[in-house]
Amino acid sequence: MTSSVSRTASVQDATQTATQTAETKAFDLKDYLKQQQALVEAALDRSITTVYPEKIYESMRYSLMAGGKRLRPILCLATCELSGGSLEMAMPTACALEMIHTMSLIHDDLPAMDNDDYRRGKLTNHKVYGDDVAILAGDGLLAYAFEYVATQTQQVPPERLLRVVAKLGRAVGAAGLVGGQVVDLACEGQPDVSLETLNFIHRHKTGALLEASVLCGAILAGANEADQLRLARYAQLIGLAFQIVDDVLDITATQEELGKTAGKDLQAQKVTYPSLWGVEESRRQANQLIAEAKAELAPFGQLAQPLMAIADYITARKH
Amino acid sequence: MTSSVSRTASVQDATQTATQTAETKAFDLKDYLKQQQALVEAALDRSITTVYPEKIYESMRYSLMAGGKRLRPILCLATCELSGGSLEMAMPTACALEMIHTMSLIHDDLPAMDNDDYRRGKLTNHKVYGDDVAILAGDGLLAYAFEYVATQTQQVPPERLLRVVAKLGRAVGAAGLVGGQVVDLACEGQPDVSLETLNFIHRHKTGALLEASVLCGAILAGANEADQLRLARYAQLIGLAFQIVDDVLDITATQEELGKTAGKDLQAQKVTYPSLWGVEESRRQANQLIAEAKAELAPFGQLAQPLMAIADYITARKH
Repeated sequence: MTSSVSRTASVQDATQTATQTAETKAFDLKDYLKQQQALVEAALDRSITTVYPEKIYESMRYSLMAGGKRLRPILCLATCELSGGSLEMAMPTACALEMIHTMSLIHDDLPAMDNDDYRRGKLTNHKVYGDDVAILAGDGLLAYAFEYVATQTQQVPPERLLRVVAKLGRAVGAAGLVGGQVVDLACEGQPDVSLETLNFIHRHKTGALLEASVLCGAILAGANEADQLRLARYAQLIGLAFQIVDDVLDITATQEELGKTAGKDLQAQKVTYPSLWGVEESRRQANQLIAEAKAELAPFGQLAQPLMAIADYITARKH
Repeated sequence: MTSSVSRTASVQDATQTATQTAETKAFDLKDYLKQQQALVEAALDRSITTVYPEKIYESMRYSLMAGGKRLRPILCLATCELSGGSLEMAMPTACALEMIHTMSLIHDDLPAMDNDDYRRGKLTNHKVYGDDVAILAGDGLLAYAFEYVATQTQQVPPERLLRVVAKLGRAVGAAGLVGGQVVDLACEGQPDVSLETLNFIHRHKTGALLEASVLCGAILAGANEADQLRLARYAQLIGLAFQIVDDVLDITATQEELGKTAGKDLQAQKVTYPSLWGVEESRRQANQLIAEAKAELAPFGQLAQPLMAIADYITARKH
């Protein structure tokens, strides 16, 4: 229950970082995100209990509970509610999305991949537990994500849950995240990566799981095909905008703000949106994508306030 | 359709390697395995198509199609048929089991884990595609396994499929294969590993997925609880016997027979069943477990012939 005083204060605060539109003015995104994050953190904390052999559960929990925006779970919960479902219906899938995302970060940080020592301001998983346990922790999180959706979801017909399992699998596999990663790795050190390839990488590496987050929420609630299409399009657009903003922040933000090594793309001479378009044009493109994403939500009216505000947040965020 | 002549010849052949019991005498295991293997190979070959980005699909297919006994898929198909289901109902799950098994081999062979150069007589995945792609190929196969079960299975009620998804996830995660791996890694170089710990490792590292193979077949066909319990017990027993025989073969078989480095456990001074019990006692224990496993199948009568014969095959095999 937010009082009108704190609500007003928060809106003023938010105005400093995001251009408020008519649709989102009455909606306190900061409060909303804080509240949803707390729900997700509590659910994630409950999702994995440490038993023998403790090391693997500790390693899985270390990365799963290392903070982060929890954007994927929050998108899933918001879309489920928008589509007439409840938070409870979507929470196991929301947790599974974060488990999958965490798996991809753990494996991505390995010496054989990006070789990163820090993530979210903390030592990466393999720096704490060793490469072998980090590989297994990722595998364990990925497998558990599917088990968790299948065993923990309540009040959702099994046909819908199977569609969620299929979407999650596709989003993380070679047709999604893994496929994007492979192309990203192949482009490393190549100065002439095309915009088409860059788009492919991000549509798969980041976009596929964001799209799954939104679509799974809609599927769980039983949204119709037309709504699913609109929501998928919304997710694709904010996914691309998210990546463009990430690339811009890698140039403009400090290491402290990012919680990970800053300026890494530049150092690695990696082709990014700002390296193709410049920082200002990249920002303009991201804003344009966000505007298109919000246009997709128009038919949902007031119900889409959280998704509208999340779209604004993507371009306004500093980390 | 096997002629009586070739059937007689095959039985004579099999008698040289396995002690034939009354139940399996009329059953030609060699023929059966050959036929089921061919079905599984064809289904696996169809399961993954190489598209852009080709490298990841090639890498996944390289290990998935590298031969092997296909024991897990065959167990799944056999149990589904024993329980009144069809091969068609079980084939996607059978393929998924082999995808998961292959993932575990690819990650297990990585330099950060067992650092193996050869597997099934071929270079390991990371030796051909690099450590980064090998990690991603494993992730891709694991994710695809779930997608494949959820999207490709026909004529099975969705509730059953969700139970299969849950079993598969549990078998490969920290409560299964991954948990066994972690304890195995922690025991490396330790000379005083207890029998209890050794049993834990193998019940999880090998046993969990073998048990899932059998149970998923039963679940797909709608087997009752009592039958599921018997079949799970059968799977646990042959799983342990399988590992004891593996340990014995590591000492007694040649590299050529194994298709991988022989004598590796001895070199690594790894605690194994033969190192605790000696080779002869290990063989006796394996035979005892197989006898108990077969006793669990007694109520199924003639229908259990394939599972009976597979149990015999485990102690008789040379690789």
